[in-house]
Amino acid sequence: MQTPQKIAIVGSGLVGTLLAIYLKKMGHDVHVYDRSPDIRTVEFSGRSINLVMSDRGWRALENIGLDAEIKKIGIAVDKRAIHMQDNKLNYQYYGKEGEVIFSLSRGILNRKMIDLAEKSGVVFFFEHKIWDVTLADATLHSGDSERGEWQELKYDKVFGADGAFSRIRHRMQRQSMFNYSQEFLNIGYKELHIPANADGTHKIDKHSLHIWPRGHFMLMALPNLDGSFTCTLFMPFEGQNSFEALKDQSVLVDFFAKYFPDTAAVIPDLVEDFFKNPTSYLVMMKCFPWTFEDKVALIGDSAHAIVPFYGQGMNAGFEDITVLSEMIEKYGNDWKTIFEEYELSRKPNADAIAELSYRNFMEMSSKTADEKFLLQKKIEKWFSDKHPDKWLPLYSRVTFSLQPYSEALAIGDMQNKIMEEIMAMPNIEEKWSSEEVENKIISLLK
Amino acid sequence: MQTPQKIAIVGSGLVGTLLAIYLKKMGHDVHVYDRSPDIRTVEFSGRSINLVMSDRGWRALENIGLDAEIKKIGIAVDKRAIHMQDNKLNYQYYGKEGEVIFSLSRGILNRKMIDLAEKSGVVFFFEHKIWDVTLADATLHSGDSERGEWQELKYDKVFGADGAFSRIRHRMQRQSMFNYSQEFLNIGYKELHIPANADGTHKIDKHSLHIWPRGHFMLMALPNLDGSFTCTLFMPFEGQNSFEALKDQSVLVDFFAKYFPDTAAVIPDLVEDFFKNPTSYLVMMKCFPWTFEDKVALIGDSAHAIVPFYGQGMNAGFEDITVLSEMIEKYGNDWKTIFEEYELSRKPNADAIAELSYRNFMEMSSKTADEKFLLQKKIEKWFSDKHPDKWLPLYSRVTFSLQPYSEALAIGDMQNKIMEEIMAMPNIEEKWSSEEVENKIISLLK
Repeated sequence: MQTPQKIAIVGSGLVGTLLAIYLKKMGHDVHVYDRSPDIRTVEFSGRSINLVMSDRGWRALENIGLDAEIKKIGIAVDKRAIHMQDNKLNYQYYGKEGEVIFSLSRGILNRKMIDLAEKSGVVFFFEHKIWDVTLADATLHSGDSERGEWQELKYDKVFGADGAFSRIRHRMQRQSMFNYSQEFLNIGYKELHIPANADGTHKIDKHSLHIWPRGHFMLMALPNLDGSFTCTLFMPFEGQNSFEALKDQSVLVDFFAKYFPDTAAVIPDLVEDFFKNPTSYLVMMKCFPWTFEDKVALIGDSAHAIVPFYGQGMNAGFEDITVLSEMIEKYGNDWKTIFEEYELSRKPNADAIAELSYRNFMEMSSKTADEKFLLQKKIEKWFSDKHPDKWLPLYSRVTFSLQPYSEALAIGDMQNKIMEEIMAMPNIEEKWSSEEVENKIISLLK
Repeated sequence: MQTPQKIAIVGSGLVGTLLAIYLKKMGHDVHVYDRSPDIRTVEFSGRSINLVMSDRGWRALENIGLDAEIKKIGIAVDKRAIHMQDNKLNYQYYGKEGEVIFSLSRGILNRKMIDLAEKSGVVFFFEHKIWDVTLADATLHSGDSERGEWQELKYDKVFGADGAFSRIRHRMQRQSMFNYSQEFLNIGYKELHIPANADGTHKIDKHSLHIWPRGHFMLMALPNLDGSFTCTLFMPFEGQNSFEALKDQSVLVDFFAKYFPDTAAVIPDLVEDFFKNPTSYLVMMKCFPWTFEDKVALIGDSAHAIVPFYGQGMNAGFEDITVLSEMIEKYGNDWKTIFEEYELSRKPNADAIAELSYRNFMEMSSKTADEKFLLQKKIEKWFSDKHPDKWLPLYSRVTFSLQPYSEALAIGDMQNKIMEEIMAMPNIEEKWSSEEVENKIISLLK
C-alpha cells in the first residue's frame, strides 16, 4: 500500500476519469480538473468519432471490475462491412469466432465513467481552467483567463490527461531536452448521422463497422445503442473530392449519389448535418519525456496523440493506466522510479501504435476495396486457422491480444514481407488454399 | 518600390540585423526588439561556436554592399586540419585553389552588424521583452515579465528572427494545422580556448578548421582575429567519454592527455574553462507554415534551427533574406504572395540542410579519422579536377555554390552511391587514380 498522496488530474476525459478511479481505489485523494462544463449536463455531439473498445481497453477495466458495467453500453462488432461503389457489400471478419470489438458512444461512455468516479469518491472541478503548472512542486495555476488572475493549487502529484493540446505538456515543452512533434494530416473529418428506424432498430447491420472505401476519402459508420449510427466522412481539406470542393448543396448531393449511392436511403439529413457540423482536423503528436521527476506525468493523448484509423486511441490510453498501476504495484512509494519505468515501457509502444494507425488509413480507405488485398487477408486467415501457433494476423495482435504494440509492429512487418512473396506466386488466385502455399509460408517463417 | 511599411523585427541576432538593413534600404520604417541588453555593451563569450561564412552568406552581404567590410573581420580557412590521436596531422582541402570559408567571431560580427544597421537608420529597442504577438494585426505584446503588464506595439508586419525558441513561432504553434518538431541531440558542447602567442600570432595554423575526431566525440577549433582560437568540445551528455563522466579535474586532465595529447601545449586554462563554461545542448527544430497571411513571417533559426556541423546555420538564415528580397522584387506590394512564395521556396531547402548538417556530425567525428574515407574524398577531388563539368563534391555544392540545398542533397546521395561502388573495387588503394576508375565513374554517371 502506498502512502496516500494528494493527486490532481487535469482532464475529465476517458483516460483522466479511469486513472482517477484507479488512484482513488489505491487510497489517494484525487481531484479532477476540467476547463469544460460537466459533460453530463450538456449535449455532446457534432464532432465525435465513435470509439471502439478492444482487449487492451477491456483489460484496464477488468482490473478494477468495471468491464461488465461498460459492456452494457457497447455494441459488439465482429467485422468490417465494405460498401463498394457498385453497391456490392463485402464482409471481412476481424478475428476468430467470438472475437469482437465494441462500438461505444464517446459521450455516453464518458458520462458513465464520471458517474463511476464520483461514486468511488473522486472530486471533480468542472469549468476550472488550468493555464500552467509549476513542475518542481506540482502546483497548478487556475483562473478565468490566460492573462487574468490565477489561483495556486498545490498537490503532491499532477497528471496531465488533458489531451493532444495539453497545457501540462505545454509547460514541459519549455524545458530543455524535451523532444516534441506535432503533425497535422491534410485529411479532415466530419460527423454525419444514420438515425434509427421508427421501431428503434438499426437501418443497416449493427454488428459491423461499415466502410465505404474510395481511395483518398472514405465514409465509415459505427452503431449506437439507440439504433442510430455515427458516421464519419474522412477526406482531404483541399483538391479534387475534398471538403473545399463540396461547397454547396447540389455539389454535395451529387457527390454522395455518385460515390455513396446506398447512403441516400439511410442519411436523411445529409445536407443539414454536413453544413452544420464542423470539419475537424487530425493531429499526430509525439513527445519525450512524459514525466518530470516524481511530480508530474502525462498520460493518454497528452503523451501520444494518434490518428483514429486503428481504433486504438482510447485503448492505448487505458493501457498506459494498466502499465502505470503495474509500476505502482512494483515500486510502492518510489514515485520517481514508477514514473521512469512507466515512460520507458510505454514510449516505444506509443510510437508503434502511432505508426500502425497512420498506415491504417491507407488500408481502410484504399486496400479494403482491392480484391488482391482481400485475398491476402483471406490467405492469412486460412493459414492462421490451420496454424494458430505460427501465425496471428497483425490486426489480431493489436486488437485481440495484449502483446506490446512494438512487437506487434515488428512481427507484422515480417509477415508482410512473407505475404508479398506469397501474393507474387503465379496463379495465387486459384491455388491460394493449396498445400504448396501452406508449405511456402512455413518455409518462409523459418 | 514598395509602399513604406512599419515593420518590427523580433531578435537582434545576425539574421534579424541583416534583415533590418535590407528592409530599411527598401524604404521601410524598421524597429528591432531584443530581450537582451545591447551586445555592444556586454561581454560575449562562454557558449559560442565560431561561425563560418561561405558563399550563401557572402551573397546576401554582397547584395547590399557589405561583404568587403565584413571580410575584414574574418579569417580565411581553406582546409580541415585533422589531428589524429597519435599526433599525426592530416590536411583535407575544402575545395579548389582559392575556395575558402571565413571564420568569424559571433560577438564581433553581431556588434558590427548592429552598428551598420543603426547607421542605416534602423531603430533598436534592447531589453524589451516580447511575450506574445497577435497574428491577425501584427501587434506585439511587450512587458517586464510574462505574467505582468504588457504594452501593445502595433505594426504593419512582424518578423520573428528570435531564434530556435522563438516567441513569435510559439504563438503560431497554437494555430491548428501548424506542423512542428523539436529534437534535442544527446550530444552537448562546451567552449574552450586557445590563447594567442605573446606576439599576437596563432599557436596553430590559422587557415585551418582544426578537428580532433574521436568517434562519438570530437574537439574542433576555429581561428579568431586576435590570434586566439575558439574551441568546441562535442560529446555525449552521459555514458562512457561523456560530460557526465568528466566530473573532476584529474579525470578531465587524464582524458585530454589520452585523447587530445597535442592540446596540452595550447589550452593552458583547460580545467578552469571546462568547469566555468556551461555545457550547452543542440536542438533541431522544423515547422510549417512560416508565415501568417501578409502579417507575420519567421526567418532564420526561428523557422529552421539546425545543428552546427555543416557550418551553414547563419548561411541558411542569410539565404532566407536573399530569397525574401527576390520575392519582394518580384511581387511588390503583394505581401501575401511574397510570404507564400518565400516559405514555399525555402522550406524544402531548410529541410535539406537540416539533414545534411545532422549527417555531418558522423563525417566530422568519425569518418575524417578513417583512411578509407579520406581516400574516397581524394578520389572525388581527383575526378572533379579532371571533370569539373561532371562532378562537384557535395561539400562544394553546399559551401561554394548557390545551388538549392535540396538539389545538393539529392545529387550528393547519387554521388555517394557511385562512390560506394568505386570503393568496393579490388585494390582501389593502389589504382585509385587509374583510367579504369575514371572510366567506371563516367559509366556510373550515365
